[in-house]
Amino acid sequence: MKQNIYDNDIFFNSYISMRKTGVTYNDFVEQPAIKSTISSLNGKTVLDLGCGNGQFSKYCVDNGALKVTSVDISKNMIELAKKENNHDKIDYICTPIEDLEVKNQKFDIIISSLMAHYIEDYTRLIEKIVSLLNTNGEFIFSTEHPIVTARKEMNNWIIDGDGNRLHWGLDNYQEEGKREEHWYIEGVVKYHRTISTLINTLINSGLVLEKIIEPQAIPIGLEKMPKLEDEKRRPSIIVIKARK
Amino acid sequence: MKQNIYDNDIFFNSYISMRKTGVTYNDFVEQPAIKSTISSLNGKTVLDLGCGNGQFSKYCVDNGALKVTSVDISKNMIELAKKENNHDKIDYICTPIEDLEVKNQKFDIIISSLMAHYIEDYTRLIEKIVSLLNTNGEFIFSTEHPIVTARKEMNNWIIDGDGNRLHWGLDNYQEEGKREEHWYIEGVVKYHRTISTLINTLINSGLVLEKIIEPQAIPIGLEKMPKLEDEKRRPSIIVIKARK
Repeated sequence: MKQNIYDNDIFFNSYISMRKTGVTYNDFVEQPAIKSTISSLNGKTVLDLGCGNGQFSKYCVDNGALKVTSVDISKNMIELAKKENNHDKIDYICTPIEDLEVKNQKFDIIISSLMAHYIEDYTRLIEKIVSLLNTNGEFIFSTEHPIVTARKEMNNWIIDGDGNRLHWGLDNYQEEGKREEHWYIEGVVKYHRTISTLINTLINSGLVLEKIIEPQAIPIGLEKMPKLEDEKRRPSIIVIKARK
Repeated sequence: MKQNIYDNDIFFNSYISMRKTGVTYNDFVEQPAIKSTISSLNGKTVLDLGCGNGQFSKYCVDNGALKVTSVDISKNMIELAKKENNHDKIDYICTPIEDLEVKNQKFDIIISSLMAHYIEDYTRLIEKIVSLLNTNGEFIFSTEHPIVTARKEMNNWIIDGDGNRLHWGLDNYQEEGKREEHWYIEGVVKYHRTISTLINTLINSGLVLEKIIEPQAIPIGLEKMPKLEDEKRRPSIIVIKARK
């Protein structure tokens, strides 16, 4: 299944309102971690898989990237990206990653921000990425942390009668596969994979693991969104960097 | 602190009685995973760090190892090893890993079974291991899984009034360091480290990550110890293989 929640109007509008505030998890946890792992964008060709509103693609160009190819399944998102982050060095393409065909071109850097957990066939995704990467190229991606996706019953802060977060509930770790949760709309589908699957698949596809980050909030984030303190209690995402 | 719980008589006797049954977590989960990752022992020199009763050292010799150097902090354990698993190809040495000095010798394979979580300075441990490994040598180790060591309040099955295991409690993930628990005796000290620390330290020390296993029980284990079903709900340990 190629899930396209971002073209659901209720989801899209809620998501956009949230992102517009500039006070989000992405701004204070995920994006700083992704950006910290890139050695240099200067003169590099970049493939941005699941580019959303194009903010990161624009960041790449602003930091010296030669050319950015930016892909998203959502028409809504690609329209928004073309409006808000248009640039002659960025090509926006609206297609599911699974169907992406790039001919006669490979990339120095492939980035994928919080997209992999929506993809059912992870092995195929990674094999495709490896085939699109130049030798010595970098693949950097973030995905929901297995600690967060494991339990089938999602939203796992275990809360007492007064609403205090007692601990994080974990279960079903070895049962990989579909997880459904409510996120603005019912039935958003994600795929749980173990740490070993996430990493061994990269290695088995010929990549060399360079770094793992389980990011916490940057200081300004803790100030503006105090609930990000909870990232110390359990990681929400994992950022992985590997090289071909 | 160099912890030596195995020379506490109460601990040692309880531990030995448990291991003697042959119906243990080590027999059905940990050892099969460790053994499955070794490419070949044939003609190899092996360093067994935290060798305990020498069972695994003996396994190495029985499977073709040229020479095994086996190290443990516990006098009790080394005495037992010399009694039960003596062999002219095995050298048993009683010393804390931190103080181990091996001169003019490197190894093809270094193994460490469920020892690393007792060591306070993980970076120094890994650097020492890298310095003792031949080029292209393998380092394989098991350690308690960060999911299991994270919450400061240990023994984390959250149980309802009828004793049912509801889920696993996780917390304090990003706070690395000392954890104390009751295991036969009070105050057994372990060190919690995140997945990223476990793995990045290897990479930063010059090793190439080859494989991660979060093992489940082998079939005979599930038959003889039905509670090992719970390994599907959360992994107890992680096995990591890296190459120099």
